[in-house]
Amino acid sequence: MVPQLREHIERIVPLTDDEFVFISSCFTSARYRKHDFLFREGEKVAHCYFVVSGLLKLVYTDDNGMEHIVAFAMEDWWESDFQAFFTQVRATMSLQCMEDTEVLCITLADYQHMCAGLAKMEHFLLMKANAGNIAAQQRILSFLTSSAKQRYEQLLKRYPTLLQRVPKTHLASYLGVSRETLSRLYRGN
Amino acid sequence: MVPQLREHIERIVPLTDDEFVFISSCFTSARYRKHDFLFREGEKVAHCYFVVSGLLKLVYTDDNGMEHIVAFAMEDWWESDFQAFFTQVRATMSLQCMEDTEVLCITLADYQHMCAGLAKMEHFLLMKANAGNIAAQQRILSFLTSSAKQRYEQLLKRYPTLLQRVPKTHLASYLGVSRETLSRLYRGN
Repeated sequence: MVPQLREHIERIVPLTDDEFVFISSCFTSARYRKHDFLFREGEKVAHCYFVVSGLLKLVYTDDNGMEHIVAFAMEDWWESDFQAFFTQVRATMSLQCMEDTEVLCITLADYQHMCAGLAKMEHFLLMKANAGNIAAQQRILSFLTSSAKQRYEQLLKRYPTLLQRVPKTHLASYLGVSRETLSRLYRGN
Repeated sequence: MVPQLREHIERIVPLTDDEFVFISSCFTSARYRKHDFLFREGEKVAHCYFVVSGLLKLVYTDDNGMEHIVAFAMEDWWESDFQAFFTQVRATMSLQCMEDTEVLCITLADYQHMCAGLAKMEHFLLMKANAGNIAAQQRILSFLTSSAKQRYEQLLKRYPTLLQRVPKTHLASYLGVSRETLSRLYRGN
């Protein structure tokens, strides 16, 4: 298993070699090419993903065929359609590669097995889930209060590397603005 | 300690009497009157709250003095400014009573003490945090994809009792629409 996962976990909880062997046994590794789908809307979602390298987009396509980006995920991020993964309903969103991407995959059964077998992983996952809730509360706040310009500036401040890696049409979709509005923001008008 | 907390936890994990005595020792109880603040923007956030009875609103006030409702919280819900609570920065939001409200309060130190002392509470809190992430992902999605009318209908479907308890100005603020737009939705136009 890639050492990156161990480093990632050990930022929160220290692990013995045996514990990391156990954790590793709960994951499988997979590689995808740019444009590949990890899952599509309407499918079952078998895995939650840890991104080793590359870039993913979590996408909802509305009745008019318009694509909305709910989230990006890059190195060291966890991503899935959480409702579909945790409650085993069909996906309402799709997860697609924006670059060639390597992920570690865990099933719900292995997620539960890992938590039951190692209390410190439950602690680690609680810390990550709480951090996810903080980020979500901030994003909800930004939709309620901020102009497109402010949302754009917040995104650049929080995730400066995204600007280099994500095409402008995708940034616009994430921010909930048109491509034309985003172009005006780029020019600083 | 109120039996309601035990019932709430036991929907996910069974508890012995001794375990519930330990859990209860981590909380204090408090009662507030309608319009009281549990904390205000700019203050330290000492507690995460479990609502026993009543109704709270988590509010952000922008530079123009306009109030935006990030979340409501009623019986059996957990609420706080999660960034302020978990990372001990000052609150960017305020938590205020919309009705007379009884809450159970836990400090960050007691939250950590409770998790370290009882692994099944860490499991319970992880399940709640994951459910919170599902709800947040759905709310982000609704801002990206839905019209005000659809957001209103989703809210009523998910939390039908809110309509009876929350004044229309507050519903409008939660949905990110004007009071006039909401009135049109009520009339079905």
